[in-house]
Amino acid sequence: MPYYVKGLFLDTPEIGQIRARRGWALVEGDCLAAFRTDAPEGSQTPILDFGDQLILPGFTDLHLHAAQYAYCGTAMDVELIQWLRDYAYPEESRFADPAYAERQYALFVRDLKASATTRACIFASLHTDATLILMRQMEEAGLRGYVGKLAMNRNCPDTYREPSTEEGVRETERWLDACDAMGFSRVRPILTPRFIPSVTDDYMAALGRIARERNVPMQSHLSENRDEIAWVRSLCPDTRFYGEAYARWGLFGGDCPTVMAHCIYSGEAECALMKQNGVMIAHCPTSNENVIAGIAPAARYLRRGWRIGLGSDVSGGHTLNLFAVMMAAIQNSKIYWRYVSQLEKPLTVADTLYMATAGGGRFFGKVGLFEPGYQFDAVVLSEAGLNSTREFSPLERLERYVYRGSGNPQAKFCAGERIV
Amino acid sequence: MPYYVKGLFLDTPEIGQIRARRGWALVEGDCLAAFRTDAPEGSQTPILDFGDQLILPGFTDLHLHAAQYAYCGTAMDVELIQWLRDYAYPEESRFADPAYAERQYALFVRDLKASATTRACIFASLHTDATLILMRQMEEAGLRGYVGKLAMNRNCPDTYREPSTEEGVRETERWLDACDAMGFSRVRPILTPRFIPSVTDDYMAALGRIARERNVPMQSHLSENRDEIAWVRSLCPDTRFYGEAYARWGLFGGDCPTVMAHCIYSGEAECALMKQNGVMIAHCPTSNENVIAGIAPAARYLRRGWRIGLGSDVSGGHTLNLFAVMMAAIQNSKIYWRYVSQLEKPLTVADTLYMATAGGGRFFGKVGLFEPGYQFDAVVLSEAGLNSTREFSPLERLERYVYRGSGNPQAKFCAGERIV
Repeated sequence: MPYYVKGLFLDTPEIGQIRARRGWALVEGDCLAAFRTDAPEGSQTPILDFGDQLILPGFTDLHLHAAQYAYCGTAMDVELIQWLRDYAYPEESRFADPAYAERQYALFVRDLKASATTRACIFASLHTDATLILMRQMEEAGLRGYVGKLAMNRNCPDTYREPSTEEGVRETERWLDACDAMGFSRVRPILTPRFIPSVTDDYMAALGRIARERNVPMQSHLSENRDEIAWVRSLCPDTRFYGEAYARWGLFGGDCPTVMAHCIYSGEAECALMKQNGVMIAHCPTSNENVIAGIAPAARYLRRGWRIGLGSDVSGGHTLNLFAVMMAAIQNSKIYWRYVSQLEKPLTVADTLYMATAGGGRFFGKVGLFEPGYQFDAVVLSEAGLNSTREFSPLERLERYVYRGSGNPQAKFCAGERIV
Repeated sequence: MPYYVKGLFLDTPEIGQIRARRGWALVEGDCLAAFRTDAPEGSQTPILDFGDQLILPGFTDLHLHAAQYAYCGTAMDVELIQWLRDYAYPEESRFADPAYAERQYALFVRDLKASATTRACIFASLHTDATLILMRQMEEAGLRGYVGKLAMNRNCPDTYREPSTEEGVRETERWLDACDAMGFSRVRPILTPRFIPSVTDDYMAALGRIARERNVPMQSHLSENRDEIAWVRSLCPDTRFYGEAYARWGLFGGDCPTVMAHCIYSGEAECALMKQNGVMIAHCPTSNENVIAGIAPAARYLRRGWRIGLGSDVSGGHTLNLFAVMMAAIQNSKIYWRYVSQLEKPLTVADTLYMATAGGGRFFGKVGLFEPGYQFDAVVLSEAGLNSTREFSPLERLERYVYRGSGNPQAKFCAGERIV
């Protein structure tokens, strides 16, 4: 049944600009049907009246590891090798047990649901059954997203790897078949090779074939640190740059919609191919500082024609709260401006709102704006506790919320369904 | 009346190390009298039992501007000149009105009281009466700290400056007399020249005399950015470095306990004098990234013999929550390690807990440790909402709280008084 939502709507039809409109959004089915600034007098359509509260498009989290959430916020002082050995791999391997997966993913889904995120691209673990459990829980929570069973068959512990390419391909096919059979309507699969060093050439070739045959998108990591880049070069001596190690299997945008996390040290050839193929960059500033990866040139990507959104990258990132990620993106771009390059001005609140909504939302189609025909994903913010003697403009209210708000909206809509 | 507090106490008797003890702290008067790890069986002394909850020393916030709190979390995308012209000066000048001061400082004190901070060094505005209002409100809230009436008589708007040195000195004397007369027991005055460019030489000379005669400490800003340093050099051509422009008036440590905020670009001579005179460095990483100042070499200061603690620097900083400032200090030191210098390893949670407690607490005497004879300042943390399927060590629990906790403790003690 159609309904109106009333409030102060902020969105970003243009990069770097915030549009603020007080009014009524008419929701029909999963979409915004119309936006009006005059009251719908005499209409029988019900109105959800949020007064003058801020309403933003629901956020898209382009990159996160659900199977690492149990230790989120710890292991920040340890080195990468120890982080993988003592935290990431042992924790992810626990998802071999479906009962554990049910329990731990429930905590993850609870927190994601409470956040401002309506859509996400998610890494699960190697395990088909646990991945399906996560997908079912997301579905039941009303969240939308792509969820990927990890592919990984080399350079990882014996206790946590796929024993062969054949077994990996078989499980991938079983997983995709199950996704079809389970009739998910909100959540879809996405191919998820961990990153080039974790996946053999023949497995990558098979994933490329599956992507083409079954029309499945893909997600992975790219150019997060210099050691990793050198490692890929030694593993793939016939490629000119890291991204080509995905592209040669058809897994780098173009016909295969692709999200690549990080892209901190991408060179010009890699950047050119990302732009040409429309690869979506998941900028993950909280993670990038936590694991000492560095700072991606996000302002350049945003303003010079790349597709870019934000990722929480839990649990390299310490929070699912994309407002905190927006703040970190701004702060890191300021440090980048101070210490690395002054070619681009630092990111602003308007820039990062774009990245969290319209920017990342594109990966899901018409998502991330309050425009007719767009999916109605929306979050209603509560500014309780942020009172001041001062009057603020709508943009100042948003900025203040980004820096000081709780992050958890008072109400939340995903594709027209109210889920909080 | 004496009482016990029971819980899991964490503190930092040594830099870089966290001591974790389950036990009972005996509080007598304003001090911790004894710490025991066996239950006080049969004792008549009441016990506040917090089970296995984490208890930290109360935090010391070494630098913040209470008169800027109204716009905290806004104006982050504007340039410094505009920030001062449109936000800082107009807002601070509103404190000429005591009724406004009552209202706005009440919001500030409410939030400081709710935070983990028990002691603070605070910049107020130019106004004597408003500064006394803030001191009375702090006193009534049970918070401890130094509060400073700003001194500023040059390079600022006509509408917000002291009209002459004589008037500034007269108001400073009136303020100090009033502090004596009002019989504050928890809050004390601290001389607060805004920074060298804001205060003429004769006014600085007078403040130096007052510091000596009345035994009052001082606080100011130092070497926050390169333009500022060049400006000080042109204003004080007979000084070799910025810090000397304070030191020549006896306002740089030694007999005059001194807090200096920022110290990002301090050269070797300045650093040597800070160390020699025991100047306390207020490291303000959230502010330093927000206003694009840069990153201070905090790990070097901490590990090579300087006195250092943390400052929220509201409203260059966006939050009074020193857990967020601890996190920013760690993250910024990682970026510093990546892009500026690899001489010192990045800061850890243990390092930043030291800075927030024992490090900054030294400015107040025996403050910041759970040792007999130390002031009993303590905060009891609630980890509600941070549940996981995983078991965590005490240090991991703290780390998780730093990165993901609310920041507002469940209970709070300041000098033996329970205030939350």
